[in-house]
Amino acid sequence: MALKRKPVNGMKDILPAEMQIRDYVIGLIKETYGRFGFASIETPCVEHIENLTSKQGGDNEKLIFKILKRGEKLKLDKAEEEIDLIDSGLRYDLTVPLARYYSNNSANLPKPFKALQIGSVWRADRPQKGRFRQFVQCDIDILGESTYLAEIELILATTTLLGRVGFKDFKVRINDRRILKSMAAYSGFAENSYNQVFIILDKMDKIGIKGVETELLESGFTKDNVDRYLGIFENITSDIDGIRYLSCELADYLPKDVSEGLEAIIASVVNTSESQFKIIFDPTLVRGMSYYTGTIFEIEMEGFSGSVAGGGRYDDMIDKFTKTPVSACGFSIGFERIITILIDNGFVIPVTANKKVFLVEKGMSGDRLCDIIKEASKERTAGNQVLISYMNKNKQFQKEQLIQEGYEEFKEFYNERLK
Amino acid sequence: MALKRKPVNGMKDILPAEMQIRDYVIGLIKETYGRFGFASIETPCVEHIENLTSKQGGDNEKLIFKILKRGEKLKLDKAEEEIDLIDSGLRYDLTVPLARYYSNNSANLPKPFKALQIGSVWRADRPQKGRFRQFVQCDIDILGESTYLAEIELILATTTLLGRVGFKDFKVRINDRRILKSMAAYSGFAENSYNQVFIILDKMDKIGIKGVETELLESGFTKDNVDRYLGIFENITSDIDGIRYLSCELADYLPKDVSEGLEAIIASVVNTSESQFKIIFDPTLVRGMSYYTGTIFEIEMEGFSGSVAGGGRYDDMIDKFTKTPVSACGFSIGFERIITILIDNGFVIPVTANKKVFLVEKGMSGDRLCDIIKEASKERTAGNQVLISYMNKNKQFQKEQLIQEGYEEFKEFYNERLK
Repeated sequence: MALKRKPVNGMKDILPAEMQIRDYVIGLIKETYGRFGFASIETPCVEHIENLTSKQGGDNEKLIFKILKRGEKLKLDKAEEEIDLIDSGLRYDLTVPLARYYSNNSANLPKPFKALQIGSVWRADRPQKGRFRQFVQCDIDILGESTYLAEIELILATTTLLGRVGFKDFKVRINDRRILKSMAAYSGFAENSYNQVFIILDKMDKIGIKGVETELLESGFTKDNVDRYLGIFENITSDIDGIRYLSCELADYLPKDVSEGLEAIIASVVNTSESQFKIIFDPTLVRGMSYYTGTIFEIEMEGFSGSVAGGGRYDDMIDKFTKTPVSACGFSIGFERIITILIDNGFVIPVTANKKVFLVEKGMSGDRLCDIIKEASKERTAGNQVLISYMNKNKQFQKEQLIQEGYEEFKEFYNERLK
Repeated sequence: MALKRKPVNGMKDILPAEMQIRDYVIGLIKETYGRFGFASIETPCVEHIENLTSKQGGDNEKLIFKILKRGEKLKLDKAEEEIDLIDSGLRYDLTVPLARYYSNNSANLPKPFKALQIGSVWRADRPQKGRFRQFVQCDIDILGESTYLAEIELILATTTLLGRVGFKDFKVRINDRRILKSMAAYSGFAENSYNQVFIILDKMDKIGIKGVETELLESGFTKDNVDRYLGIFENITSDIDGIRYLSCELADYLPKDVSEGLEAIIASVVNTSESQFKIIFDPTLVRGMSYYTGTIFEIEMEGFSGSVAGGGRYDDMIDKFTKTPVSACGFSIGFERIITILIDNGFVIPVTANKKVFLVEKGMSGDRLCDIIKEASKERTAGNQVLISYMNKNKQFQKEQLIQEGYEEFKEFYNERLK
């Protein structure tokens, strides 16, 4: 078979210039989240197929890269379905593996446990610009903390990180699944139609309240219910007053502690944050994943469509593994999106080390080469980056390429000439 | 299907304490190799099955985790062999993907190109203590540098790294495949039996020269050839004199530039290195991978069997992708072995940040909680790590677990009591 030069379909080679930015951001992530007490952990990229297909992963379960059974386990002649051939797959997110990890290791972990995961995940999505089949996710999760201290810390940590990366003027939108549900109940929708209602509501920022009304009516919901539903949105504000308004209006449907918790989160974040951002209550925020049970939140950035981070509380998921209740709340930053934004904006990494090139004429004697290496060693010990390289025929092109890699200083060494 | 708590067979969950050490070492690797001008790159973990089975990977090709074709490409009813079902697999090393990467991207890379790769690889080896089916490899490679400057820089960079990790008294063993071959030729072995001879020679450090003699004779080699072969080893020293001796003795078989190059590498490394280690010429060093074409080297550490790093020159491999000659030389450190040694030796990460816990009594008022968070924010901004956590019932156990995670300082916050 002929060798193939391109990466497999939908995956990518990362060049040094991008890699420098990725490494820099990962460094900031580890440092910043570390300061908030999040501990790095890692799970294998390969996960049991049973765990990947346990309905926690939503549509991602259709996108699994499946791994063939090995050795005697693989009975090709007897296989009737795909599942007869496979026993594992590549993880499509870091949440399902985290749930397994926690149930496997909780005896050795502090409670509550604050986890940081940075790792690749794989989804066999249709390849498209800026979207790859292998990409890095970066999640922080707090397991075993049932109070809203979890939400506050997650939001403070993530906004602090975005601030340190250099972002300003971003917006945290927050809502609660239980508010969504109580609004639907108040409006008279049947419980089994909630998800359908929320999917339409989710389009509010794109199609507006009129568009939502049209789609709800077209979907067969009664004018009465739809009017009552959209009526709430018309009277709501995106701040603590909005939450209080809902708390009164939906009094028969919404437990008091939900609205009070949301108020407390917003107030505490505003009160304690040092980064520049807004936090708003957004009753139209839905978030796709069905495993969320309480608060949900997203961060959006001016000039960039879609969210750059999202998360929420998912109190019922870890239980599926542990068989005992474990409250959980997480925030995932869109690592690849952040890298794309930085590159598109011509981001330059704050200088830490000087990057120098020692260009050596070919045929340099061993002794002189040793002297050059010693000179480089001194610089390196002092923390500088020194590339020793022989001069190419086209020295100018060589330098240009090295400048692209961030090298700023060139020193040239020539053989001694006979006079 | 029931959910599974354990990781898939042979792979492991990494707990926070180990992860801290891994992160610390990876930080040192990136910094140290960065100073030597190695640029970080990344390739996808999934690779074309054609590339993985192109005979570059030796026995590793038998250990591939294979990935099922997707969608219409998978024709289960028509599949007769395994290869009909799969089109990709998980990489088993970083060298084959590097060769593909270089051929795919060389127009955008400086020449010579110094690459640093840190990444997981997968091998379906029989699981055993300390050996896992997913593990991290860490490779540096210099592509397009045909002179021994490549070898010198690889050895200096790797020994500098090991020194910074805290290792002393390690030993670099160096040899050249062409010396191995010329010794075999000089002794009268047939060329097609060289590999068999080398596999036996490779056991010298375990079974001694007598054992090697016995095995060679048992394998059917003539006493004449074996005597002549082992005679060389008896007269050789593990220094530059040893190389010079061989250079005279094997004059008809060994090109002068090979022995001179090896001499120059050893002399330059001794002359320029700042770390504490020995470099010795070892004519019994073989290294398994068949792709090596010139110098080969390994690092061993006192009190630890096997090597902690290994590499060499492989000038014929990149060509298989590029179709034009590209010289290549690489050094791979045994990342997992180094981590194991550090953990076994009770390694403690040099303190950089203070790690503090703010333990908060349950039921703390929102206002007081905000004050505590603000106090934590100040500490965090100053670079300290602060974990805010509610007190558990068993506070003592909670503290003990946190001490294991490296927390040193505890501050407790209680609700105000009515007098």
